[in-house]
Amino acid sequence: MRALHRWIAIAAIVLVGTSAQAEDGYDLWMRYRTGQTVAADAIETRGDTPSLRVAAAELRRGLVGPGPIVLAIATDRDVAALHLPLSALGDEGYLIRSVKLGDRAVTLVTANTDRGILYGAFALLRHLQTGGSLDRIALTSTPRIKLRVLNHWDNLDGVVERGYAGVSLWDWWTLPDFRDPRYTDYARANASIGINGTVLNNVNAKADSLTAPYIAKAAALADVFRPYGIKVYLSARFSAPIELGGLKTADPLDPQVAAWWKAKTDEIYRAIPDFGGFLVKANSEGQPGPRDYHRSHADGANMLAAAVRPHGGIVMWRAFVYAETDPEDRAKQAYTEFKPLDGKFADNVIVQVKNGAIDFQPREPFHPLFGAMPKTPLMIEFQITKEYLGFATHLAYLGPMFAETLSADTMAKGVGSTVAKVIDGSLDRHRLTGIAGVANIGRDRDWSGSTFNQANWYAFGRMAWDPTLKADTVAREWAAMTFSPAVVEPVVGMMMGSREAVVDYMTPLGLGHLMATGHHYGPGPWVADLARPEWNPVYYHRADKTGIGFDRTATGSNAVAQYAPGVARNFANPATTPERDLLWFHHVPWTQRMASGRTLWPEMVHHYDAGIAYVANMRREWDALRPSIDDERWTKTATYLAVQDREAHWWRDASIAYWMSINGLALPAGAAAPAHDLAWYKAQRFPHAPGNPQ
Amino acid sequence: MRALHRWIAIAAIVLVGTSAQAEDGYDLWMRYRTGQTVAADAIETRGDTPSLRVAAAELRRGLVGPGPIVLAIATDRDVAALHLPLSALGDEGYLIRSVKLGDRAVTLVTANTDRGILYGAFALLRHLQTGGSLDRIALTSTPRIKLRVLNHWDNLDGVVERGYAGVSLWDWWTLPDFRDPRYTDYARANASIGINGTVLNNVNAKADSLTAPYIAKAAALADVFRPYGIKVYLSARFSAPIELGGLKTADPLDPQVAAWWKAKTDEIYRAIPDFGGFLVKANSEGQPGPRDYHRSHADGANMLAAAVRPHGGIVMWRAFVYAETDPEDRAKQAYTEFKPLDGKFADNVIVQVKNGAIDFQPREPFHPLFGAMPKTPLMIEFQITKEYLGFATHLAYLGPMFAETLSADTMAKGVGSTVAKVIDGSLDRHRLTGIAGVANIGRDRDWSGSTFNQANWYAFGRMAWDPTLKADTVAREWAAMTFSPAVVEPVVGMMMGSREAVVDYMTPLGLGHLMATGHHYGPGPWVADLARPEWNPVYYHRADKTGIGFDRTATGSNAVAQYAPGVARNFANPATTPERDLLWFHHVPWTQRMASGRTLWPEMVHHYDAGIAYVANMRREWDALRPSIDDERWTKTATYLAVQDREAHWWRDASIAYWMSINGLALPAGAAAPAHDLAWYKAQRFPHAPGNPQ
Repeated sequence: MRALHRWIAIAAIVLVGTSAQAEDGYDLWMRYRTGQTVAADAIETRGDTPSLRVAAAELRRGLVGPGPIVLAIATDRDVAALHLPLSALGDEGYLIRSVKLGDRAVTLVTANTDRGILYGAFALLRHLQTGGSLDRIALTSTPRIKLRVLNHWDNLDGVVERGYAGVSLWDWWTLPDFRDPRYTDYARANASIGINGTVLNNVNAKADSLTAPYIAKAAALADVFRPYGIKVYLSARFSAPIELGGLKTADPLDPQVAAWWKAKTDEIYRAIPDFGGFLVKANSEGQPGPRDYHRSHADGANMLAAAVRPHGGIVMWRAFVYAETDPEDRAKQAYTEFKPLDGKFADNVIVQVKNGAIDFQPREPFHPLFGAMPKTPLMIEFQITKEYLGFATHLAYLGPMFAETLSADTMAKGVGSTVAKVIDGSLDRHRLTGIAGVANIGRDRDWSGSTFNQANWYAFGRMAWDPTLKADTVAREWAAMTFSPAVVEPVVGMMMGSREAVVDYMTPLGLGHLMATGHHYGPGPWVADLARPEWNPVYYHRADKTGIGFDRTATGSNAVAQYAPGVARNFANPATTPERDLLWFHHVPWTQRMASGRTLWPEMVHHYDAGIAYVANMRREWDALRPSIDDERWTKTATYLAVQDREAHWWRDASIAYWMSINGLALPAGAAAPAHDLAWYKAQRFPHAPGNPQ
Repeated sequence: MRALHRWIAIAAIVLVGTSAQAEDGYDLWMRYRTGQTVAADAIETRGDTPSLRVAAAELRRGLVGPGPIVLAIATDRDVAALHLPLSALGDEGYLIRSVKLGDRAVTLVTANTDRGILYGAFALLRHLQTGGSLDRIALTSTPRIKLRVLNHWDNLDGVVERGYAGVSLWDWWTLPDFRDPRYTDYARANASIGINGTVLNNVNAKADSLTAPYIAKAAALADVFRPYGIKVYLSARFSAPIELGGLKTADPLDPQVAAWWKAKTDEIYRAIPDFGGFLVKANSEGQPGPRDYHRSHADGANMLAAAVRPHGGIVMWRAFVYAETDPEDRAKQAYTEFKPLDGKFADNVIVQVKNGAIDFQPREPFHPLFGAMPKTPLMIEFQITKEYLGFATHLAYLGPMFAETLSADTMAKGVGSTVAKVIDGSLDRHRLTGIAGVANIGRDRDWSGSTFNQANWYAFGRMAWDPTLKADTVAREWAAMTFSPAVVEPVVGMMMGSREAVVDYMTPLGLGHLMATGHHYGPGPWVADLARPEWNPVYYHRADKTGIGFDRTATGSNAVAQYAPGVARNFANPATTPERDLLWFHHVPWTQRMASGRTLWPEMVHHYDAGIAYVANMRREWDALRPSIDDERWTKTATYLAVQDREAHWWRDASIAYWMSINGLALPAGAAAPAHDLAWYKAQRFPHAPGNPQ
C-alpha cells in the first residue's frame, strides 16, 4: 500500500515534469497506447545485433503483451525445426506467428535477417495499434520494391528546397560530433514503414557535400541509421572534379575524371562501408552534366556506376531534364532524351522518373517513360512535400495520388502493365527496383509541418513496401495509430477526397502548372513574362477566346505518341480521354459538352466550387472531432483548415476572374462572383515564402 | 484500492505516451519539480485579467503547496487593510508575504498591477524551486530598469543573423493564423525572468516588416505576449518611405517623410495598441539613415519619436556606427558622432550603446559613451548569442561579463559612477531606462542551442531586472532550477570561469576581433586583405616584430581621452591599465615584464594554456556529474564540451603559430608546439557556418 502511494506521488511529479507539449505531434504514428503492460523478461531476442537490439527496444517501448515474444532469425535451431515458409521472405520480409517454440507457446517474430525481424517488430506493433490481437497471430510480408528511398532536398546551409517544415533535420554544423537523438527517431519512423534509404542532400547539389568534413558528417548519420536498415546516399554534383579536384573538365569519358570519382568514392566507402550510392540531377535546370561535354546521360551514369560498383553501390540517375534551348513540348523532353538510351546503362544504374512528365502537379497523367524502357530499371519519384499543393497548410492526403499513378496501365506489354509492375520489376524482370519520395520532413516539432502531412510520409513508406496497397487501407492504419481507432472513419473520410479537392480548386480537368512564379504558392495563371517559355503558366493552359488546354495530339505537340499505342489512342481522342486529364492533352472549346451535360466553362466553375465545398466540409468534420482529439493537434489542424478554406476561395476566385478576362463569358448561373477584381489577385506578393531559396 | 490500481495503469500509459524526449531541454528552468501537490482550490485570484489568469495557471502548473495562495492587487480591500509597503513597488514590483487575510492565514502575492503579481508568481516559483519554503515567506522586489528588452536579429525568411539555435522562432509564413503554443512558452520564459519587451526583427531590417501583412503577424504575437507583460517592438528600416511609400527621399526633415512615418505608425498602433516603438540601426554597416541626407542621428530619431509619441511609444536608436570613409580608430567613432548630440534627442528617445566600443568581443572595456551623455538616456546592449565566443557549442557563462561591464566605474560623476547607474537612470535622473540583449533563441528544441546557453538568457533577464545581482547568485538559481539543487556547486563552478577561459584561449590580455572573416568562427588573426581596414584582425592586434596591441593613448589614436579623466589616466598608462585590457589600449613589447614576472610573450602563451586547461577541467567536472543529470542533456553537453576542448586547442595553436611567425620568438619552455603549421590553420574553411546570411 505504501508502494502504491509512492507510485501516485511519482506519477504526479512526472505529469508536471514532462514537457508542456506532450501532444505536439512529435511521436508521429508511433504512440503505442495499447495500455497493456508487459513483464520485463517477456521479450526475448536470440542472437545479438544492433538491429535486433533496436527491434526489442521498440517492442519494449510499446508495452505490448502479454509475452513471451521471441525475436529469432530463421537459422535459430528452434525456429528451423518449425519448417516455416521463410525462403520467400528474401532479406527483408518477416513472419509473425503464434507457435510452440521448444516447449513454450510464444509469439515468434522471425525473418532471414535481423532487418527482417526489425520490420516484423514494427508490423507487430502496427497490428496491435490498429486493434489486432496476439491470439493466433499470423502475419507475413515481403517488400515488392528493393530501394525505398527518401530524397531530402536539403541544402548545406540548412534551407530545405521546397521544404515547409522548418530547416533541415541534419544539423551539419554540429555533425559529426553531436548525434541528435532526433536522428534516431527519424530512423525509427522510417524503419516502421519500411523505408531503407535516404539521400541526405539536395539534388541541386553543392560539391562541398563530397569534401572530407561532409563525408564524416554523413558517416555519423549512417552510423545512427544502420541498425534501422537505412542506407545513406548522396546527391553528387557532376562538376565536382572541377570544383574540388582542380580538373579542367568533368567529361565522363576523361580518364582523369573517372579516376577522380573512383578515388572520391573509395574515400566515401572508407567512412561509410555500406554507402548506398549517388543520386544525380544532371543537365537540368542549370545543373552541370555529361551533355556539357556532348556525352549522353548513359555515359555520365555509367562512369559513376563504375566507381561505386566494386563496393556494391548504385547510381540513381534522374530523367527530369528539359533544355532551355529546346522548343519541344517540355512534357516530351525526358522521353525524347532517355528512350534512345534504353539498354545503354550499366546494371547498377537505375533511372529515376517523376510520376508525371512535368513537375509534381496536383494531377499529372503517368510519365510516358514508364513501360518505354524495358531494358532499364526505372524507379518512380513522388513528391511527398507539397510544393504545388498548398505547402504545409493545405490538407491533401497523397495516398490516392500515389495509387493513381502506380495503378495506371502503361499497356507496354498489353492490358495490366501497370506502373507498379514497371517499378517492382515484374514486368521486365529487373533485379534492381526502386521508389523515391521527396521528403516533407524538417526540424519542425511535428516533422512535416502538420499532423496530416505526416500521413503522406507514412503512405509513401507503406506503398513503397507494397505498391498494391489501397490508399484508404493505409489511411485507416495511419489514423488509428496517429489519433485513435475511434476517429478512423471521419478522419479517413476527410483524407480520401482531400487531394481531389486541391485538384478541383487549383487545376481542374487536367490543367497544371498555374502556380505563381518561384515559390509556387497561390494562383498565377496570368504569368506570361518569364524568360523561358515553359516557366510561364500561359505555356501550359493556352487559354484563348475559344478554348483552353494544351493540344498534345498529332495536331499539336503529339506528346501522346510517346505512350504505348493503346494508351496513346485513348489520349489522342477527347472522347476517350478521362475528363480529369482532358486539358492536359487537348485544347477544348469553352462550349464543349461534358459528361455532366454542362459545357466546359460551367464545368470548370463546378469543379472550383466542388473543391471549396470539400474544404468547408472538412472543417465541419474536424469541428465535430474536437472532443476526440487532443487540444494542441486539434487546434493547429483547425487553424490550417481555416487557412486552406480561405486560400481555396482565393484560388477559385483568382482563376475564375482570369479565365473570364480571357473567354469573355459570363459567370454560370448561381456561381458566386470573385471577391476581388483580377488586378487585386495579380497584385498579391509573397516576398519571403518558404522553400524557395534564392 | 481499485482507484489506486487505475492510477498505476494510467501512470504506465502516460509514461509510454509522452514524448520520447521528455528531457530535451525544452522546459528551460521552469521545471517545478517541487513534488508537492496542491488542492485545486488552493490558488485564489481576486479580480480577473489575462495576466492574473496566466499567473494563477503558472502556479497551478508548478504544483506548489500547501495553499492557500492568494493573488490580489494592492487595491483589494483585504490587502489594503494590511497597510503593506506597496507604494515603492511601482508598476512592476511585487510583494509576497505570509499574512492573515480576512480571517485566513494565506500566502499573499500582491502588487500594484497584475503584471507585478505575475512577476511575483514567478518569483514564488523560483523561491520554491531553489529550496525556499512558504513558511513565513517575505519576498519583495522592484525592477531597477524600465525597458528589459530582447533584440531578435531574425530575418523575415527565418534566418537568424548570428543565430546558432535554429531558425527564427517566428514562423512568419503561418502567422497571423497559427499561434504556435511555443510563442506562449517563449512569453512564459521571458516573464519568469522579468523581460518586458521584444524586438521581433533584425536591426538589419527589411522594409517588408512594416507592410500590412507583417503588421498583422506582429500583432498576433503581441496578442500572445500581452498577458505576460511583454511589449512588441519592430526594427525600422530608415529608407522605408522610399521602398514602401514611393517617396523620393527618406530625409527626416522632409514633411512628406515625417507624414509617411506618422501614418505608418498610426497603422501599427491600430493593430497593436500597446506597440512599444522602433529600434533603429542607421548609417551603420550599409544601413540607410539620416546621414545620407546630411542630417544628424538626432534628426532621424526625433522624427520617428514624434510619430510614436501620441501613442506613448519610444525610439531606441543604436549608437553602433562606423563609417567606411572615416579613418579614425573604429573604437572612437560612436563617441565622436554621438557625444555632440547629447541633449538634442527627444525625451522618448533612448540611445542604445553596445557594452564595448567595438563589437561584442569576449572582453571589451566599457563603452566610452557611458557617462558621457548625461542629458540623454542610454540603454546598454549586450549580445547573449555568442557570435564571437564559439557559437552554441562553447560553454561560456556570460553573467560575469554582464557584471563586469555593469559594475565598471565610468567616474563620470566621481568614484562609483558605475555603468549600472548610468543605465538605471540613477546617475543622471533619467525616467526612461533600458537594457537590451541580442537573443540567443531559435526554434531548436532547447531554444538556445545548448542547455548552458539557456543560462545566458536567464542571466540577462535577471540582471536586467537588477543589475547589481552577482553573476554567481544568478548561476546558482539557474543551476538549481535547470538541473537540481544537488548539482549546484559543481555546475556553478564550471560556469563561473568559463567566459574567462574563452577570453584566454581566443583573445587574452585585451586582444579582440581576431576571428575569421564573416562567420566569426575560429581564429583568423592573419587576415589582412579585406576591403575595409577595420574589418581585418591585423587592424586590431597590430602585432609586429617588436610588440603587439593597439596604441589608443595620446601617441596613438588617443581613444582613452574619450573616457572621464580618472579613467582615461589609468588607461593611458600601461602600468595602471588592468592587464586584462592591456593590449586594447597599448602596443606592448613582446619582452615587457608582466605582473606574474613573465614577459609578455610567455604570459600570452600562459593564458592560452590556462584557457584550454579550464575546458579540460570542465569536461572532468561534467563527467563526474553523469549520474546526476538526465542522459539526453548530459550527453549533448558532454559532446559540446569535447568540441570546445578540440577548438580551444585549435584557437591556441593557430594563434601561437601566427604570433611566432610575426615575433620570431621561440616557444616558451614547457609549452606544447602547435599541432599543425600556420599554413594548415590558414587553410581551414567553413563554407556553411550558421548565423552568417550572405
